[in-house]
Amino acid sequence: MAGSTERALGVPRVLEPTGVLPQAAQRLDASPEIGPDEVRIAVERLNLDAASFRQLSEAHHGDGAAVRAAVLEIVRTRGKMQNPVTGSGGMLIGTVDAVGPESPLGLRVGDRVATLVSLTLTPLSLSDGLARWDGRSEQVPAEGTAILFARSIAAVLPADLPDAVSLAVLDVCGAPAATARVVERAGARSVVVLGAAGKSGCLSLAAARAAGATELTGLVRDEAEAAALRATGLADRVVVADATDPLAVAAAVGTPADVTVVCVDVPGAEHGAILATADGGTVVFFSMATSFPAAALGAEGMAADVTMLVGNGYTPGHAALALGLYRSAPGVRALIEPRIHP
Amino acid sequence: MAGSTERALGVPRVLEPTGVLPQAAQRLDASPEIGPDEVRIAVERLNLDAASFRQLSEAHHGDGAAVRAAVLEIVRTRGKMQNPVTGSGGMLIGTVDAVGPESPLGLRVGDRVATLVSLTLTPLSLSDGLARWDGRSEQVPAEGTAILFARSIAAVLPADLPDAVSLAVLDVCGAPAATARVVERAGARSVVVLGAAGKSGCLSLAAARAAGATELTGLVRDEAEAAALRATGLADRVVVADATDPLAVAAAVGTPADVTVVCVDVPGAEHGAILATADGGTVVFFSMATSFPAAALGAEGMAADVTMLVGNGYTPGHAALALGLYRSAPGVRALIEPRIHP
Repeated sequence: MAGSTERALGVPRVLEPTGVLPQAAQRLDASPEIGPDEVRIAVERLNLDAASFRQLSEAHHGDGAAVRAAVLEIVRTRGKMQNPVTGSGGMLIGTVDAVGPESPLGLRVGDRVATLVSLTLTPLSLSDGLARWDGRSEQVPAEGTAILFARSIAAVLPADLPDAVSLAVLDVCGAPAATARVVERAGARSVVVLGAAGKSGCLSLAAARAAGATELTGLVRDEAEAAALRATGLADRVVVADATDPLAVAAAVGTPADVTVVCVDVPGAEHGAILATADGGTVVFFSMATSFPAAALGAEGMAADVTMLVGNGYTPGHAALALGLYRSAPGVRALIEPRIHP
Repeated sequence: MAGSTERALGVPRVLEPTGVLPQAAQRLDASPEIGPDEVRIAVERLNLDAASFRQLSEAHHGDGAAVRAAVLEIVRTRGKMQNPVTGSGGMLIGTVDAVGPESPLGLRVGDRVATLVSLTLTPLSLSDGLARWDGRSEQVPAEGTAILFARSIAAVLPADLPDAVSLAVLDVCGAPAATARVVERAGARSVVVLGAAGKSGCLSLAAARAAGATELTGLVRDEAEAAALRATGLADRVVVADATDPLAVAAAVGTPADVTVVCVDVPGAEHGAILATADGGTVVFFSMATSFPAAALGAEGMAADVTMLVGNGYTPGHAALALGLYRSAPGVRALIEPRIHP
């Protein structure tokens, strides 16, 4: 069993250190020849993780050429785009140009796709020196090849939406899918979303509503966000508080909810989320800034009988669900569209 | 609502910075006068968190007097025992010597108790200069006072077990309780425990069995642990692998399980745990060394449809459940007893 598992996970692409999974690897083999269960993509655009781009930009004092050189050097030496400081990657879009006979992904040559696994584990080779990128945006026009394994995920880009919209929605599609599942399984009625005016937050509100929740509270950081969220009708109630101030969150939310979804992108939201959740309820952490010990010890320290979930970026059907919510919920569109840089 | 919530959580005891919860505080007011919903404990013994004690010991090159001085200085300046490097604390035992009229904890003056909330949020004042401690063990004989809030947890020490046994079991009582709950709710049959020969691991195996699981696999690190675990009969199958090597874990476990419980105390067990778990299954992370991003991105990167839980140290009834397992499962006793230093 280990043999096929290893191949499905891309282990044969790991050059250094041997024996680890591609994400933990220092260096991957990004050569374009594919194995029988792999897929090759002709890359069109990288979408760098926001934290990674910010780090690179600051380290090079906003010098676009230096940022571009840094990205090229990372990809050349590591065979993947994984920022060594932040550890994060991003995603990419491109066109399928070769499919191994044993690939289970259901892709066909010519499909335009977005990869839904991180760039941190995607073998990547660049051929254009990123000549069309000025190093000043997370969106990186690029030419080269990327490899998908048997256990990878890619979504075919829909024809009815601009690429930038699809990318923005797919980037966070794990959150609404997980929210919907938790609300359905728990039969939850009341849901609080921290960071409700952001991409993952507004999609999670829409997903919770579609899954049957009837009392939706959106917590946002300021009056500008509150006004924007109120205008959409996605939440039944909009409250303003600093998500990193547990007592302020508890006071703003009032009666604790069956389910709390954490979509804020800053550290320190764990305790407020726990206080916002009723005994027997569930907290879903979708922020990569979540601290495991802060959540675990916080709940224990407050004798809070809550179930806490590590937000898994993968749930079957997550891409279709998120794109469907974008199409069907005008409020989601209204909040996400202004965030998209064409 | 915020007023009583704040008091129940001990916020009035926070001196610096104001507005945070006691665990996040730099400095607590540890004065022995109690509020109407507080309980005061006459301290007998501190049980320092293993990671904290190791750090202090190494920092002071095993010089017991220096370690003792360091602990005294931390408690004096912070009003609690929270190691500034590891961020961790421990627990304590003592005798209840004052109960506020509004305390909901059900304790009575004279009860001998162990606190089940972390020392990192427990106001603590020491009066004996830790004169009876040589600075060479996690078990610290001590005199002084500690404060419990309304939303704290303490377990009355059972008369039929030595204090050291009760402390050892109560220290990890969240793991078996959470395991039992997950197995029951999911109707799980197969359970894998990583780090199965340790305290939380063997209790989790026993809890899974009691909750109805029928195929128990214990994963341990070497043949010595394997022999000890096999002799207890707590697991149906014992396998040996490095929990931080995902492919080795997958190969050792074979068919993935409905539920995987992570009880190893080292970083890097996330991906092995995910691979050990069947699609639709659940991973419960009980190691404080768990990395939130490694778990979240790992599952996404492997397209693993698993539910991942942050192990909550608090589940109602957890103390009684764990002590009951210790009494009723001879295998648990056989594994835990040799670890106890009298």
